[in-house]
Amino acid sequence: MTATPEQASTTPTGESVFDWIDARAQARAEAGLTHRLSPRPAGAVTLDLASTDYLGLARDKRVVGAAAAAALRWGAGATGARPASGSTEVHTELEYELAKFCGAPAALVFSSGFLANLGAVTALSGQGSAIVADQHIHASLIDGCRLAKADVAVAGHREPARVAHALSTRGDRRALVVTDSVFAVDGDLAPLPELAEVCRTHGAGLLVADVHGFGVLGPGGRGAVAEAGLVGDANVVTTLSLAAALGGQGGAVLGPRRVIRHLVDTARALHFDTGLAPASAAAALAALQVLRAEPERAERARAVAVELATRLRAAGLAASEPAAALVSVRAPSAQAALDWARACQAAGVAVGCARPPAGPDQVSRLRLTARAELTEADLDRVCEVLVSTAPAPAKP
Amino acid sequence: MTATPEQASTTPTGESVFDWIDARAQARAEAGLTHRLSPRPAGAVTLDLASTDYLGLARDKRVVGAAAAAALRWGAGATGARPASGSTEVHTELEYELAKFCGAPAALVFSSGFLANLGAVTALSGQGSAIVADQHIHASLIDGCRLAKADVAVAGHREPARVAHALSTRGDRRALVVTDSVFAVDGDLAPLPELAEVCRTHGAGLLVADVHGFGVLGPGGRGAVAEAGLVGDANVVTTLSLAAALGGQGGAVLGPRRVIRHLVDTARALHFDTGLAPASAAAALAALQVLRAEPERAERARAVAVELATRLRAAGLAASEPAAALVSVRAPSAQAALDWARACQAAGVAVGCARPPAGPDQVSRLRLTARAELTEADLDRVCEVLVSTAPAPAKP
Ligand SMILES: Cc1ncc(COP(=O)(O)O)c(C=O)c1O
Ligand SMILES: Cc1ncc(COP(=O)(O)O)c(C=O)c1O
Repeated sequence: MTATPEQASTTPTGESVFDWIDARAQARAEAGLTHRLSPRPAGAVTLDLASTDYLGLARDKRVVGAAAAAALRWGAGATGARPASGSTEVHTELEYELAKFCGAPAALVFSSGFLANLGAVTALSGQGSAIVADQHIHASLIDGCRLAKADVAVAGHREPARVAHALSTRGDRRALVVTDSVFAVDGDLAPLPELAEVCRTHGAGLLVADVHGFGVLGPGGRGAVAEAGLVGDANVVTTLSLAAALGGQGGAVLGPRRVIRHLVDTARALHFDTGLAPASAAAALAALQVLRAEPERAERARAVAVELATRLRAAGLAASEPAAALVSVRAPSAQAALDWARACQAAGVAVGCARPPAGPDQVSRLRLTARAELTEADLDRVCEVLVSTAPAPAKP
Repeated sequence: MTATPEQASTTPTGESVFDWIDARAQARAEAGLTHRLSPRPAGAVTLDLASTDYLGLARDKRVVGAAAAAALRWGAGATGARPASGSTEVHTELEYELAKFCGAPAALVFSSGFLANLGAVTALSGQGSAIVADQHIHASLIDGCRLAKADVAVAGHREPARVAHALSTRGDRRALVVTDSVFAVDGDLAPLPELAEVCRTHGAGLLVADVHGFGVLGPGGRGAVAEAGLVGDANVVTTLSLAAALGGQGGAVLGPRRVIRHLVDTARALHFDTGLAPASAAAALAALQVLRAEPERAERARAVAVELATRLRAAGLAASEPAAALVSVRAPSAQAALDWARACQAAGVAVGCARPPAGPDQVSRLRLTARAELTEADLDRVCEVLVSTAPAPAKP
C-alpha cells in the first residue's frame, strides 16, 4: 500500500490537519478494533470459511472461462454509466436470465450489491415517504435509508407486528418496508411471508435484500423470496449481490417492470457510476447456468451449515441457528474475537471476524460461511481448530 | 430486462403500492427525461465520444489480456470484503503502483469510484466536523456529504474566496474541503493550488476527486493533483476511478499513510462491499503500465479536446472550454438534447447526453469525450454530424 515518502505540510499552527486521526487509531488499537488487509496468494493455502463464495463458483472453470472470454471480447470495462455507453449485450442477457431464474418480471444490474441497495432504497422512497426498516439491516441499506430523505422508523428485529404498527401510524404517506432476507452477521431469517402480509394490509412496498439467501435458499437456490412464495409479487422488490453465491462482482434489483424502469430513469447509483465490467457480468451469467444445472450445491451449503452449527454447539460454543449458510459464534470481546480468528488462520482455517461497528450490536463474533465444497473431513478439522483455539469464556 | 409475467397483488383498497411510479414516469416522459439502456454489441459500430475510455485502454490487448489471465488465476470475484477474504496480491500490487505513479504515500482500492468517494468523504468528516463543498461536485461526493453527518456548506463553483470564508466561520471544528478536479459535465477545472492554499491557511483537509484529471492532466497523465504541485501534500487526499482513463472498473483513494489506515479501519464502503474483482484490479494495473510507457496518450486526449471545442465553437455551437478531455455543448432543452444525441447516434457518432438531474443546473448538454484515439478524419466527421443535427436554437 505504501510507496512514496510523505511531504511535510503543516498549518500555520504547526499541526497537520489529519492529526485527529492518530488519536482515533490509538483508541481503536486499545479496543481491538484495528483491521489489516492481508493479501491472499493465488493458491488457497487455508480452508475457506471466511469468503461468501457459498457454492464454490468463484473458481469454477466455466465461470472464470466466461469471465476471461468476455474481457477479451468486450474489453476491460463498461466504459461509462449504464444509461450512457455502459450497457452491453452481456448486461442485458444477464438481466433477462436473472429475472427468469427468480421469476421476477424484470431485473437491473448494478456494479455492486452495495450500490444496488443504495439505488433501490432511494429511488423507491424519497421526500414525504415513510421507510420502516428492520434494526439489523445491512450497512448499504442503512446508508440507502439515510440518503432517502424519508422518515425512517426502525421496527425492532424480525418483528412484523412492530412493522405493522409503524405502518399504521404513518398517515397517508407512501411507505417502503426494508429488510435483509438472511441477516449478514448471525445468518437468521426475516419473517418474509408475515412481512409481505403486513405490507399488503397496509399498502406498503417490500424491499428484500436477498444477498445471503439467493443461491442457498428456495427451490434450486432461487432465494428466500422464492422460498417465501413471493415470486412475482407486484409489491415486492428484491436486491442481490452477484458477489455472494455467484462468486463474482456486481449487484442487481429484481421486481415489477415499472419499478425497474423507474430505477433506470432515477437511480443515482446507476447514472453516476460506471457499469459493471463485462467480464464480471459474463461470470455471473455463467455462474447462474451452473447453479441451474447443479441445484444440489444450494442444498449442500444448507446441510453443511446445519451440521457445522450443531457440532459447534455440541462442543459448547455459542453458535447461531443457521437459516441459510452463515453461522456466527459469539466471542467474549472484540480483542478475543480477533485473537481467535488469527489463531484459526494460523491453524489453517480462515474465518470471518465481525467486530463493532460491523455487527447488529456490541458483540463480536466469528463468522463462518458453510460452503458447499466443505467435506466431512474439513468439518472435523474446522470444529477441532475452533474449539482448541477458543478463548476461555467461550469454551465449555 | 423483462422475463416473467407479473402477478396481481393489490392492497385492500385495490391499488398496487407502486402506482405512484406511473405518474412520475408520465411526467418524465413529457419533460424528455426518460432513459433507455441501449445494449451495445461487441464490435464498435459508432464513433465513440460517449465513453470515458479517454486513452483507448479498455480494449488494449495488454489490458484485456491481463484481465483474462487474472480471472483464470484468481477466480471471478474477490469473494469477500477487503478486510475479510477480499484482498489479493493483485489488489496490493495495484495500490503500490498507483501510489508510486501518483507520488502519494499510500493508496486503497475500492470496487468503484463511487464507493471510493463515499468512503473517503464519510471517513474523513463525521459528526461535529465541517465540510465545504464546491457546488458542482459529483453525485457520489454529494451522497458522501449527505452520509457524513457533518455540517455541509456549499461555497459556489470554483470560488476559493467563498471556501475561505466558510472555513473562517466554522469555529474550532475540523474541516474537509471537497471538490472534483475536472467537473464531470462541463469539463472545467477546480482552482486546486488556490484551494490548497486556503486549506493550509485555515487548517482544513482537501479532498480532490481526480476522476477526469487522472490519465489526462499532469506530467505523463499523473493527474490534476500532480499538475497543481500537490503531490505528497500531507493535507491532501485524492480519489480516482479506475473506470475512466484506465478503462476498467474500480476506484481508489490516495493520500497520507494514516489517512489510508484510517479508511481501512473505518470506511463503511470498504467493510460492507465485496472487493474489486481480481480481473478488474489486474486490468487497472496493466493499464497503468501502458500509461507509463505511452504518456503521449494523455497529451493526445488534451489536444483532441482543444481542437474539438475550437471547431465546434467556430461552427457556432455552445461548446465549453475544455480543461482536460471533456467537452460539453449546451442544448436548448432536455428533449432537444435527447433528440440531438439520438440523431448523432443514428449518424454513427455516439455522444453523451446530460439532462437534469445529471448536470450542475437545469441546462441539458451533449457531453463529448475527446478520446486520444480520435483521428483528424474522425473529428471532421464528428463536427459535421454535430452541426448538421443541431437543434434550431443551438445553431449559428
Ligand atoms: C446483506 C448484504 N447486503 C449487501 C452487501 C453488499 O453487496 P456487494 O458486496 O455486492 O456490494 C453485502 C455484502 O457484501 C451483504 O452482506
Ligand atoms: C467525477 C466523478 N466521480 C466519480 C465517478 C464514479 O466513478 P465510478 O464510475 O468508478 O463509480 C464518476 C463517474 O462515473 C465521475 O464522473
